[in-house]
Amino acid sequence: MLLYVLDLAGVAVFAVSGALGAGHAGLDWLGVVVIASVTAVGGGTLRDLLLDRHPVFWIRDTRYVYVILAAAALTIVWVHLLPVPEHALAVADALGLGLFAITGAQVAEERRLPAVIVLLVGTMTGAAGGLLRDVFTARVPLLLSSGIYGSAAIAGIAAYLLLQAAGTPRRWAFHAGVLLIVALRLGGIYGGWHLPVLRLPA
Amino acid sequence: MLLYVLDLAGVAVFAVSGALGAGHAGLDWLGVVVIASVTAVGGGTLRDLLLDRHPVFWIRDTRYVYVILAAAALTIVWVHLLPVPEHALAVADALGLGLFAITGAQVAEERRLPAVIVLLVGTMTGAAGGLLRDVFTARVPLLLSSGIYGSAAIAGIAAYLLLQAAGTPRRWAFHAGVLLIVALRLGGIYGGWHLPVLRLPA
Amino acid sequence: MLLYVLDLAGVAVFAVSGALGAGHAGLDWLGVVVIASVTAVGGGTLRDLLLDRHPVFWIRDTRYVYVILAAAALTIVWVHLLPVPEHALAVADALGLGLFAITGAQVAEERRLPAVIVLLVGTMTGAAGGLLRDVFTARVPLLLSSGIYGSAAIAGIAAYLLLQAAGTPRRWAFHAGVLLIVALRLGGIYGGWHLPVLRLPA
Repeated sequence: MLLYVLDLAGVAVFAVSGALGAGHAGLDWLGVVVIASVTAVGGGTLRDLLLDRHPVFWIRDTRYVYVILAAAALTIVWVHLLPVPEHALAVADALGLGLFAITGAQVAEERRLPAVIVLLVGTMTGAAGGLLRDVFTARVPLLLSSGIYGSAAIAGIAAYLLLQAAGTPRRWAFHAGVLLIVALRLGGIYGGWHLPVLRLPA
Repeated sequence: MLLYVLDLAGVAVFAVSGALGAGHAGLDWLGVVVIASVTAVGGGTLRDLLLDRHPVFWIRDTRYVYVILAAAALTIVWVHLLPVPEHALAVADALGLGLFAITGAQVAEERRLPAVIVLLVGTMTGAAGGLLRDVFTARVPLLLSSGIYGSAAIAGIAAYLLLQAAGTPRRWAFHAGVLLIVALRLGGIYGGWHLPVLRLPA
Repeated sequence: MLLYVLDLAGVAVFAVSGALGAGHAGLDWLGVVVIASVTAVGGGTLRDLLLDRHPVFWIRDTRYVYVILAAAALTIVWVHLLPVPEHALAVADALGLGLFAITGAQVAEERRLPAVIVLLVGTMTGAAGGLLRDVFTARVPLLLSSGIYGSAAIAGIAAYLLLQAAGTPRRWAFHAGVLLIVALRLGGIYGGWHLPVLRLPA
């Protein structure tokens, strides 16, 4: 139940980030809805297609779609009245990445897939929505341009799996994994944290 | 039967628009075929994967592929002999968007999926091919840069569903939906029609 | 058995090319792993989704994932110690394209799909990984910018099918197809070979 609420919260947060991305690209209102939807359902849809889970989560449960529509509408109203709360959004985006990455990992885990596959599927679930948003609004993908992103997902899922292997209850491992992803992501944005970079001449 | 012919026409039109996009990007002839194919089958393939319809439409019925190859070849011959009929093409592209969006919606409708899912799947079916074309030829996606596009699809599918709910026969609702999409799209191109835009500082 | 080894080699080669692409875009180490993975599994994943083959190849056999991780790690170590062997890589990339295109075609062939579908599925299998790499690292896709690429795949698969139709044993047709793709691709890079180009004003 808590997980379902968190999952809906992750969808809402990514919808807002998609709507803002569409706003930066100067789209009209329905274009905002399209990009908000793609950002919010992209990662989970890829997860469901890769694992052959049908119907896809947002086709099975339309509540996700209503959450996206409400989030996009609220974003449009909000930005006409108030300044965009960039810091609140950075936190929300980090929370969305954390929730999606770990719940994506859990779906793969429930299929008893090997740890390395759990890691990859979880990372893709967390990162795909944002990648699609950036590709469709013709920006340099955030994955590339800003500190820790995919890396945070990988690290958090690895912690989640290692804690469980060490006997930690699944619920605690879940919270620890999400928190680690949020912390690493925010440290990347505000603290300038980053992993060693591979920099080749262009 | 008429629907099948219209569907093939939609594929042909999108293949031409893909071939022209590839020409603007300076691809070789077989690259033109690749982009024409991706543009023409992209939307329907996404629809079939999301709804778990196998085999995918162009694998089940190769006539689609032959239509694409013929359309790409004709485009290459045409542009060496005659000017590109930009206006005819804009009409054709609008017709393709309309046909794909409504037929995509119908496939979802036949699965008795809720209206909001029918709306989303139809919009994705109509818009995905053109998005892929623009991403792969490294242009700013048309979805973003030019008036009404995804919006036209959403409005047309909504009209199609509302008319049926009001008792209109399916066939008439179909024609009305396609016509509305074509009209909105052409009004966006030639009339400068547009929805309110969300414009945030970049 | 040989085919399986060649398939793993193709995955390794594409992982290296993805890792180098990520390096040119200045990603951190885990970002390098993400792009290397997407490049290496993109084509085969698309093939498996289109043909409804589940579990997807790298989920069924984790050896692919370990090969990708090893290839990405080796690339990171290598570029810190030695110059990037551009020529060796061009050959390896061509070999990867050839192997993926023909093995993708073979999977479609084993389903007794028509020749034109075998051609399309094989081309997509060969080209998709590199396209995703270029889109996600925000470069003009290689498919577009450099000589023969998709075209080499189409020509090689066509030769593979025609040779079999003329009675050549499958094994020899396989080798001939791969060799033709490698030769055309390298001729495109070093010999400036290219097909007629469709060039329209932008």
